[in-house]
Amino acid sequence: MSSTKDIDALIDLMAKLPGLGPRSARRTVLHLIRKRSLLLIPLADTLQTVAETARECLNCGNVGTTDVCDICTCEKRANGELCVVEDVADLWAMERSGIFKGRYHVLGGTLSALDAVGPQELRIPRLLDRVPSEGITEVILALNATIDGQTTAHYIADNLEGQVRLTSLAQGVPIGGELDYLDDGTITAAMRARKSF
Amino acid sequence: MSSTKDIDALIDLMAKLPGLGPRSARRTVLHLIRKRSLLLIPLADTLQTVAETARECLNCGNVGTTDVCDICTCEKRANGELCVVEDVADLWAMERSGIFKGRYHVLGGTLSALDAVGPQELRIPRLLDRVPSEGITEVILALNATIDGQTTAHYIADNLEGQVRLTSLAQGVPIGGELDYLDDGTITAAMRARKSF
Repeated sequence: MSSTKDIDALIDLMAKLPGLGPRSARRTVLHLIRKRSLLLIPLADTLQTVAETARECLNCGNVGTTDVCDICTCEKRANGELCVVEDVADLWAMERSGIFKGRYHVLGGTLSALDAVGPQELRIPRLLDRVPSEGITEVILALNATIDGQTTAHYIADNLEGQVRLTSLAQGVPIGGELDYLDDGTITAAMRARKSF
Repeated sequence: MSSTKDIDALIDLMAKLPGLGPRSARRTVLHLIRKRSLLLIPLADTLQTVAETARECLNCGNVGTTDVCDICTCEKRANGELCVVEDVADLWAMERSGIFKGRYHVLGGTLSALDAVGPQELRIPRLLDRVPSEGITEVILALNATIDGQTTAHYIADNLEGQVRLTSLAQGVPIGGELDYLDDGTITAAMRARKSF
């Protein structure tokens, strides 16, 4: 190990990051120390800033540096469409695609009887409030295609039935996907939802 | 992408760390924001401390938070043995084994005609000074078993010939190694250096 406790402490903390272990943490710390002005100092400063300012948007649950996030404050995005996602990583994935121009609602997880996660533990009551108050006309349920994700989607759909147009993402063959490697469920879904060529 | 520039800047910096790409950097940043008090704040503070204090030991080239590192200041380690390594990662690897009780000298690379790295670019002149001034009796050349590493070892050996006992690490079958997976060079070295059972 290195000879000083601050460097050891940094290695221990780095090793807790997802995808890094003790060995890669040591390599990373050495790399940082070698690139002090290019990487170590900017990273330390930016982490400090984010540690002080990062918070969840009070409206939608997105991560940002203000009480209400940029998407919720942008008037252009108040187009009546609301995309419901499980967590912030999903929101970022949707934003990267650039296809969606409305606002988001981050649930912060899925309903799960086993883990005792009910609607109150998620941001579902806030969602039910937002639909009338923001004049939402379409709720897109972009939840993961897992059992828990679909259970949550059905719960939300039951609660919003009749108030608003409810849609979900299309299921089918992913772009670049090979049929041979797809599971039966996806092929079945793609076949059922086939369209004229 | 996330909606604020500090978080984006943090993702960009994280993506420059060895072993992390844009996708894992995003995952790491979300993980940090979720574990603010447990991980984000301690990591930001420790990085700041290391950014302010980390430096190379003026004597041996080890990384530490003081001008002369803990190993160089520890009187117990002045046992006349000096282990020459290529870089700090190698020093840390030696320290983890716990077998070596002397001091180190970190060259900071290997001689390389192609990359125009001569003895002056490395910490070789300082090594030649240390041997008489610290009363070194044995220099262990723990350089990597590569062409450049061995060239450097030979250069140092030529310069210290007659002044001091020169040794190098034994070569052979690694602990847990299977003969079937070893290269010819290692098997040849292990066979030549065979010992009575």
